[in-house]
Amino acid sequence: MTDRRSLHLFARPEGLPKDEDFEMRHEAPAPLADGQLRIAVRWLSIDPAMRVWMSEQKSYWPPVGLGEVMRSAGIGEVVESRHPRYPVGTWVSGMTGAREELVCDGKGFRAFDARALPHPAWALSVFGATGLTAYFGLKEIGQVKPGETVVVSAAAGAVGSTVVQMARNYGCRVVAIAGGPDKCAWVKDELGAHEVIDYKHEKVAKRLAETCPDGIDVYFDNVGGEILDAVLRRLKLRARIVLCGGISQYNATGVPVGPANYLSLISARARMEGFVVIDYLDRAGEAIAEFGPWAAAGKLTSRIDEVAGLDHFAEALRRLYTGQNFGKQVVKV
Amino acid sequence: MTDRRSLHLFARPEGLPKDEDFEMRHEAPAPLADGQLRIAVRWLSIDPAMRVWMSEQKSYWPPVGLGEVMRSAGIGEVVESRHPRYPVGTWVSGMTGAREELVCDGKGFRAFDARALPHPAWALSVFGATGLTAYFGLKEIGQVKPGETVVVSAAAGAVGSTVVQMARNYGCRVVAIAGGPDKCAWVKDELGAHEVIDYKHEKVAKRLAETCPDGIDVYFDNVGGEILDAVLRRLKLRARIVLCGGISQYNATGVPVGPANYLSLISARARMEGFVVIDYLDRAGEAIAEFGPWAAAGKLTSRIDEVAGLDHFAEALRRLYTGQNFGKQVVKV
Repeated sequence: MTDRRSLHLFARPEGLPKDEDFEMRHEAPAPLADGQLRIAVRWLSIDPAMRVWMSEQKSYWPPVGLGEVMRSAGIGEVVESRHPRYPVGTWVSGMTGAREELVCDGKGFRAFDARALPHPAWALSVFGATGLTAYFGLKEIGQVKPGETVVVSAAAGAVGSTVVQMARNYGCRVVAIAGGPDKCAWVKDELGAHEVIDYKHEKVAKRLAETCPDGIDVYFDNVGGEILDAVLRRLKLRARIVLCGGISQYNATGVPVGPANYLSLISARARMEGFVVIDYLDRAGEAIAEFGPWAAAGKLTSRIDEVAGLDHFAEALRRLYTGQNFGKQVVKV
Repeated sequence: MTDRRSLHLFARPEGLPKDEDFEMRHEAPAPLADGQLRIAVRWLSIDPAMRVWMSEQKSYWPPVGLGEVMRSAGIGEVVESRHPRYPVGTWVSGMTGAREELVCDGKGFRAFDARALPHPAWALSVFGATGLTAYFGLKEIGQVKPGETVVVSAAAGAVGSTVVQMARNYGCRVVAIAGGPDKCAWVKDELGAHEVIDYKHEKVAKRLAETCPDGIDVYFDNVGGEILDAVLRRLKLRARIVLCGGISQYNATGVPVGPANYLSLISARARMEGFVVIDYLDRAGEAIAEFGPWAAAGKLTSRIDEVAGLDHFAEALRRLYTGQNFGKQVVKV
């Protein structure tokens, strides 16, 4: 058997993650003990929070230690098994780490039927943590109601595109913000957003005024920065801002920029609330019960943006922060 | 009868309100029509929000128009009456405006028993909008529970001092932030805060780390700025930030400063929510039912900070923004 590769955190990045912040290591495959399985990792989920995990910042999880395998969700196939519940050929999903192969006892992994999905990586998008993030963010934190005006940033991204479709399916008016004509066209034509704002070519504040003349009920924020500030100026009474991420801030090397217009929360009696998807993992069934029928009926789709090869992991990650990804960013291992 | 004076908004202030932003006018007293009463205004409530009302900023109330009487809550005595419900000698509380005398039909005013209070201006502090602000902010927005750690800024101010005492009476651990040794001593010795931080002489972030080693459950924010940012770094899981005001920002002439650490709301699954006391006016009875017995039992006090004379209105207002007021700032008309 040839050596297997794994990607280790080598240095905490300054600004955008560089290739040199990681180190590729090679290791001979270990033999299996009783109760163990060998997973050949097929796709890795590339997530904005990775930049936080790479830093020294205290978060909902501890930082990845220097020298440790880079933390990553992934899916793979069981290629060898001494575990009764995971026969060879089973597809599994879990925190594989950025590696080609993993030997484990199956704990923390979930088997799924990859053939039932349009693409196996849907288990990392709408039917993975991405989907749960959209679902619980919009429903639990956003308390969204039919007929409300919902604004979504990073709307062509993994979470954003799911939120757009959810809000549309719930009967909301959806104003989606994305970068560039291709993404905007997809968000409008394929995902069904009622209005799109191209933040790369349009003035977001002006376009929000045009598209949300009566104000905004729910803002699903994936980006922070200027867009959050523009939304704060147009809140309806008792609006909810769902703080999902702040991708515009993760790579800031200086002091991050706070939302200057946050005092609008007072006059609008509005709320800004953060959440972390891991709190909802035990309620995944609720999301799947809603998403399954939607996907079957063509009312929920997912676009997979694939970069090939573990050695392109850092590149794939940079795509997120530079807005190059179109749909769910994954690495094909 | 001599002329009565009223203070009109003359110019929208840049930075701190100046004396010249107001214009004093004199007017002969009008005779009363049937159903009217004449109120001699005795004390005016000086409130941080006044700076917002003076600006062009859209808020929960429209800006005060140039040339209009400056908006202000006040209390006064009925000195002449053709209204059956308001005999001469009745004390009333309401939006009097910044004037010495007011003729009206009594609508929007509430009679109260000034002799039952240690000082008539308590009707503007704990038993006025100030008290309601503290009460509904801490209970409804802050969802405070016994045993929690509550941090209060501007703790020697009107709202802050009420919040400190409420939280103490509810069995919370209270960490109060105030400016200078006199205020800090009062907040600790008289109001019963468990810990005080003197933001003028101590590093707030360091002191918060010392006094809140397990984090902060509720932050009642009257000031915004650096203190809000320091609190954001020390949130407990599911913490609530009650946005009551942002006195550090109201006079900013450039772009206001947003809370740079707002993304901590995500990892803490925390919430920052604004509110406006006018939404709770019809529930005033709830606050009074709790505050009345406390005041009678010596468990709720109020300190009145008096500036004499309508011509010192702007000066009294500046005292708020420069942190000079000690307790509830009022103008004795």
